[in-house]
Amino acid sequence: MKHHQYALTPPMGWNSWDCYGATVTEEEVKGNADYMAENLKDFGWEYVVVDIQWSEAGAVSSAYRPFIPLDMDEFSRLIPAVNRFPSSADGKGFKPLAEYIHDKGLKFGIHIMRGIPRQAVHQNTAILGSDVRARDIAKPNSICPWNTDMYGIDHTKEGAQEYYNSLFDLYAEWGVDFVKVDDIADSRLYGIHADEIKMIRKAIDQCGRPMVLSLSPGPAPLDHASLLTENANMWRMTDDFWDIWHLLYDMFDRCYKWSKTIGPGYWPDADMLPLGHIGIRSVDGGASDRYTRFTKDEQLTMMTLWSIFRSPLMFGGELRDNDDWTLSLLTNEEVLEAHQKGTGARQVLRENDKVVWMSYGENDTIYLALFNLTDENSQVEAEFDQLGISSVEVKLRDLWANEDIGTASDKISFEVPVHGAKFFKLTNI
Amino acid sequence: MKHHQYALTPPMGWNSWDCYGATVTEEEVKGNADYMAENLKDFGWEYVVVDIQWSEAGAVSSAYRPFIPLDMDEFSRLIPAVNRFPSSADGKGFKPLAEYIHDKGLKFGIHIMRGIPRQAVHQNTAILGSDVRARDIAKPNSICPWNTDMYGIDHTKEGAQEYYNSLFDLYAEWGVDFVKVDDIADSRLYGIHADEIKMIRKAIDQCGRPMVLSLSPGPAPLDHASLLTENANMWRMTDDFWDIWHLLYDMFDRCYKWSKTIGPGYWPDADMLPLGHIGIRSVDGGASDRYTRFTKDEQLTMMTLWSIFRSPLMFGGELRDNDDWTLSLLTNEEVLEAHQKGTGARQVLRENDKVVWMSYGENDTIYLALFNLTDENSQVEAEFDQLGISSVEVKLRDLWANEDIGTASDKISFEVPVHGAKFFKLTNI
Amino acid sequence: MKHHQYALTPPMGWNSWDCYGATVTEEEVKGNADYMAENLKDFGWEYVVVDIQWSEAGAVSSAYRPFIPLDMDEFSRLIPAVNRFPSSADGKGFKPLAEYIHDKGLKFGIHIMRGIPRQAVHQNTAILGSDVRARDIAKPNSICPWNTDMYGIDHTKEGAQEYYNSLFDLYAEWGVDFVKVDDIADSRLYGIHADEIKMIRKAIDQCGRPMVLSLSPGPAPLDHASLLTENANMWRMTDDFWDIWHLLYDMFDRCYKWSKTIGPGYWPDADMLPLGHIGIRSVDGGASDRYTRFTKDEQLTMMTLWSIFRSPLMFGGELRDNDDWTLSLLTNEEVLEAHQKGTGARQVLRENDKVVWMSYGENDTIYLALFNLTDENSQVEAEFDQLGISSVEVKLRDLWANEDIGTASDKISFEVPVHGAKFFKLTNI
Amino acid sequence: MKHHQYALTPPMGWNSWDCYGATVTEEEVKGNADYMAENLKDFGWEYVVVDIQWSEAGAVSSAYRPFIPLDMDEFSRLIPAVNRFPSSADGKGFKPLAEYIHDKGLKFGIHIMRGIPRQAVHQNTAILGSDVRARDIAKPNSICPWNTDMYGIDHTKEGAQEYYNSLFDLYAEWGVDFVKVDDIADSRLYGIHADEIKMIRKAIDQCGRPMVLSLSPGPAPLDHASLLTENANMWRMTDDFWDIWHLLYDMFDRCYKWSKTIGPGYWPDADMLPLGHIGIRSVDGGASDRYTRFTKDEQLTMMTLWSIFRSPLMFGGELRDNDDWTLSLLTNEEVLEAHQKGTGARQVLRENDKVVWMSYGENDTIYLALFNLTDENSQVEAEFDQLGISSVEVKLRDLWANEDIGTASDKISFEVPVHGAKFFKLTNI
Repeated sequence: MKHHQYALTPPMGWNSWDCYGATVTEEEVKGNADYMAENLKDFGWEYVVVDIQWSEAGAVSSAYRPFIPLDMDEFSRLIPAVNRFPSSADGKGFKPLAEYIHDKGLKFGIHIMRGIPRQAVHQNTAILGSDVRARDIAKPNSICPWNTDMYGIDHTKEGAQEYYNSLFDLYAEWGVDFVKVDDIADSRLYGIHADEIKMIRKAIDQCGRPMVLSLSPGPAPLDHASLLTENANMWRMTDDFWDIWHLLYDMFDRCYKWSKTIGPGYWPDADMLPLGHIGIRSVDGGASDRYTRFTKDEQLTMMTLWSIFRSPLMFGGELRDNDDWTLSLLTNEEVLEAHQKGTGARQVLRENDKVVWMSYGENDTIYLALFNLTDENSQVEAEFDQLGISSVEVKLRDLWANEDIGTASDKISFEVPVHGAKFFKLTNI
Repeated sequence: MKHHQYALTPPMGWNSWDCYGATVTEEEVKGNADYMAENLKDFGWEYVVVDIQWSEAGAVSSAYRPFIPLDMDEFSRLIPAVNRFPSSADGKGFKPLAEYIHDKGLKFGIHIMRGIPRQAVHQNTAILGSDVRARDIAKPNSICPWNTDMYGIDHTKEGAQEYYNSLFDLYAEWGVDFVKVDDIADSRLYGIHADEIKMIRKAIDQCGRPMVLSLSPGPAPLDHASLLTENANMWRMTDDFWDIWHLLYDMFDRCYKWSKTIGPGYWPDADMLPLGHIGIRSVDGGASDRYTRFTKDEQLTMMTLWSIFRSPLMFGGELRDNDDWTLSLLTNEEVLEAHQKGTGARQVLRENDKVVWMSYGENDTIYLALFNLTDENSQVEAEFDQLGISSVEVKLRDLWANEDIGTASDKISFEVPVHGAKFFKLTNI
Repeated sequence: MKHHQYALTPPMGWNSWDCYGATVTEEEVKGNADYMAENLKDFGWEYVVVDIQWSEAGAVSSAYRPFIPLDMDEFSRLIPAVNRFPSSADGKGFKPLAEYIHDKGLKFGIHIMRGIPRQAVHQNTAILGSDVRARDIAKPNSICPWNTDMYGIDHTKEGAQEYYNSLFDLYAEWGVDFVKVDDIADSRLYGIHADEIKMIRKAIDQCGRPMVLSLSPGPAPLDHASLLTENANMWRMTDDFWDIWHLLYDMFDRCYKWSKTIGPGYWPDADMLPLGHIGIRSVDGGASDRYTRFTKDEQLTMMTLWSIFRSPLMFGGELRDNDDWTLSLLTNEEVLEAHQKGTGARQVLRENDKVVWMSYGENDTIYLALFNLTDENSQVEAEFDQLGISSVEVKLRDLWANEDIGTASDKISFEVPVHGAKFFKLTNI
Repeated sequence: MKHHQYALTPPMGWNSWDCYGATVTEEEVKGNADYMAENLKDFGWEYVVVDIQWSEAGAVSSAYRPFIPLDMDEFSRLIPAVNRFPSSADGKGFKPLAEYIHDKGLKFGIHIMRGIPRQAVHQNTAILGSDVRARDIAKPNSICPWNTDMYGIDHTKEGAQEYYNSLFDLYAEWGVDFVKVDDIADSRLYGIHADEIKMIRKAIDQCGRPMVLSLSPGPAPLDHASLLTENANMWRMTDDFWDIWHLLYDMFDRCYKWSKTIGPGYWPDADMLPLGHIGIRSVDGGASDRYTRFTKDEQLTMMTLWSIFRSPLMFGGELRDNDDWTLSLLTNEEVLEAHQKGTGARQVLRENDKVVWMSYGENDTIYLALFNLTDENSQVEAEFDQLGISSVEVKLRDLWANEDIGTASDKISFEVPVHGAKFFKLTNI
């Protein structure tokens, strides 16, 4: 499908949510874009994404303020709050910010909520390209369970598609390259919103600009894998992910479950990387301003799983506060090669919380990850037979260390620290 | 419990929904009250109830108009639309109409939706008796799945109870005797709204006027029988009931299920009686303006079941258009005696859609109902042993015919027509 | 209904499960009967019940042994294992033991599993009073999820009712007064087994001997309250109850839920009292041989709740090992008066785990129980208004202490220890 | 994974269930094998599968006989009933029949039920290669909801894997090439039996003979797609499929849902083809002895969907009774080319029950199927854009007619009869 061309490898970028919640400012976005251009672009990182509530002038944290007024144009479309995004003044929207980011060779993304602002519906404002008004296309009983900004759109109504078209026409005009649509892949009240996903697909297709489509929150239902694949580029496998071990532990099952439904252009999403300096103006995840609570071994586990599984990689921390360790996690070329070029990733075995994943690299190489999810240092191993290796001996390269560490025959077996991971490239001899 | 005193027998009255949907006018209400005073009051009928949307000036049928503005006072409380209820002009609310009805020796009831108007929340209007405003007490993700007027109330918020108190203080001032609260006993989105039921109980208790509390829609969950009993006088066992056989057929199971949770002051409710001239300005129940689609036998079945089970009796048709037959269903003193005085009603047996119910009357009498739910005339019978009758012979009185029809021994057995019923009083000899 | 006559007050007795699991012997049963006759009979205790697996010669604990052969007669009916019940030799069954118990002025009860022995089905043995054989009436896919002894009975099959009749005819012949039927009120695989409950009701009714019918395990579904009431005398509200605080804590909600469906002859059952010396040959409830793990305050809480709610009281410990304290819990006449004579029990309020229950005694007295379910000593109180008391002052009698403790006006308020209870009788002055 | 090699294209064959239910005989199997060798082998058909109950000497139809004894060896393993499979006499099992089929260049398959015979458990027979006995490894509460032959195996028990190994060692010795395991991919009682699937995978891997593993019944849960893919070759998407339109209609949704989880060696299975002469000794599917009730257009629809989706093709009728039409459905080389060589099959669109599927052939060709699921002849069309075709014009070949039918530009649009299908190959010009 055509839209799969927009993301032939899993997208890599930065998102403002983990550090700034609903409050990020233009200056902060630019600062992170600058950092990315300087330090990360060469490694494949490219998207800079402004997350939720950019229309809310007075947003103060990650907590939503019920029924708060939002900045909106005459056609029921939300626009950036000028106090937070000064360059958007005079109706210019996100266009100047997008240009700033494009000029650095990067791409620009925004977050939106499914639907139409409740304030538009109660004011009954106009819909561009249609004679109907907001009240005519809103789906009365379709709300978000955790945010009061929007009503859903009733796809059976005249003007419904026109509304979504008018949104994406505006985003195309701004120069948006990536849209994260929220309250759509799962809802505690209604499940997945299939009809709105299809309307959004059509709206992007007609707007004339390629945009990567990312769907949140999860868990997106595997039962709708066909729908998701045929309409989006990535979708969340979980509810919000934070720097808490049991959430990371839990991701292994989800990756296992989704590992047969992944390919060029469609990427089940393990969510953002809560690394480095996060929680700056967010109170989500049971904590506030902090460096990630993951141990270094847990960070390696996360990066290894996300890489071999090929989840999109969206860094959640304030990039400018990265220490060397954190930066090193994002700039290991051999690990990122597995992320960008591996194929056929699968869980080879899971026994007593010792887990092995593999994928295939170029030239008959194999990427192999050993994970120790137990609470003590453990030997983790896989036999050649389980890996489908028929040769007698293989060469092993430690991807995190970037060094050759000898050969193995019959099986690969290593001591792995508590909650830690080993990541290898295997070459036949 | 004190509130049980307000309805020691199952309430009987008229409700505007089945005939006028969301549109009834003051004149129509008065007309039906007049009829009731003249023709029905002596038989125990007393409540005159204005159903939903009395604040909506432009209501046109039973179909709700999404996001339509409603008449409201400065304290976020809905008030009658003056064009429909002229006597409510100048802030008098329903007081004049209530007085009119009281003057006839009848009682006055209104319908309300759980919660606070969405328009109040978006305008952030005041709450009487509190410093908070509408936005502070609304529960953001609590909506009605089928009507866009209201948001639910968050009982944990300061000012929440004050809001409900202010509502019932107003209703007490108006002289309201009966309140049917909607979107509360069941919701396809959220189940039962227990916390709002408790707030409403408290609000009534504090308002100083006894009001019967009726909860809609159903099916109210039997698992919450204790909550319902301790807070309300009646609650719906089903979603809306109409003149359709399968809905009536289905009511037998529901009555069976609820038959152990019924007593003086707490009445599981089989819903209104869609009899006579209905659908005048309603398009619900798959039909419009009509005389009831129930056959006469089905009407007898309904009246017999509602009576022996002791459901509240709320007539749904335009009373002034009653024919003799319809009126006769409402004025049979012997049938109504079973409704007002029977105790211990229970389904004795159900076999192949032949159903027998009994209850106890005064002086060792037994009320016995034989129902034929099959599609052909059938013999329906119950043995004395099943009825717990130890005497050799009993006298039988046909309650619908008001005549003695001889004696029976060992068993009661009658041919009952398709979808029909027989209703007897048994006296030991 | 007639069978309600067999248990006009909630049954009181002893059951072998909590102390002896699946292994009790005749000598132990007699010993407990002796103790009951001497120490408890005068207080209303009367049933002596042999619990599960009395047909299994080699039972060793509360753990079931899959597919183990059982003692059975030629008509597919289980009979006592002679090694454990010597008096049953020569086909006498439980008759001699029942006589022994009857001679002491007590009543005799047994446990059975729903259905027909799997061994009967695989051997295809005969059914008394029918030409069919075991294989013809077994319901192929109806098993117990936790015990392999039986298949369920298919009520649509010829001979099905005859089988159950033959069982209860045998029990009548033995002199059984109480039958606890297991795997029937709830099943993790299938829910409630309504058809078999009805067959068993009919089988008892035809056998000519009154027997109290008790259904296990729970939670029996409240949705089937009518079915349960009309067919049984008691049914479990929970899965197995043990001496663990959270199970006792949890019982308050269950009693609240069921409190509107209780009356003379039909008793929701909070399960046995795991008091005194239990776990002698049982490994259930996460422990083995011990004195109850409940604190004395928790024991008072349990006895008070069971009494005011009017649950059946079935003592689970080895009676002969009772200490004075334990015996005192069973022989407090004032507490037992509330259990035998209270009416209209209901939870008056529950706030922050402080709970108040009341019921009505004779001569306008009120039984009042204050419970403190929190983890610190707390003041628990109820206002006269909440209790429906209109007099100015009441006299208070402490039921556990058997002493008058003065008067109260406006409200009843006491400090209650952690997990403890106060139990009063209130008399108007 | 290695086992994917055993079925790199979707398996094609014959299965005895649709025509002979539980009763097929050796002679009938041979007769169908003869027919296949002569008429179908050259088109890729190769498996001859004996379905359920081949151990039951007295099986009479598709209806199972509860608790009936089965033929079994001393190691708790079921063996063929000699009266039905004479060549199995003297302990030779299915070896002679397998050889007969192999000699014709075909492959031999059998059906088994998950688990161990109940009769083995109740007799407590031995397990080959282990000291334990049947009772030790049976899972007591694991039964099949529709057949009484077996208990499930408890994978945590010593000897459990040995039992399954002993089964597949026997099948390897017999020369079995295909095993359909039943009561395992879905169960109304327990869902999917993941642990037994894994044991069976290991048992096949260790037995030394490649066998295709097919799992029944459905619907297998998509949530377990990874498990299924990594352990089996095919699994059912539905419960039993018969010649009833709504079942065929329903299959479109299931194929859509599963279409992202399909590839060389793992094939979601739309079930057998109930074509030709079926129901000979089966009473399933609401009918008995008959020619398929599908219209010719429905037959084309089924064959087209199964082919473009790449379901396994298992013919269910008595092959020897095929008429020319039926045979033609199985021997259209161009249709079978799409089945064997298509890739990336997906539903392109579905609107008002008009459905379009496509897949990719070799040399930039496209397979295109137009379906009309409505009840009247309809125009079904797809635009080039929806198909991802960028060329101006394509050549069209009608696969069922084996003829070129000209060219198309911009879109493909055809009238399709009621419940019918069109199947094309498109070539760029």
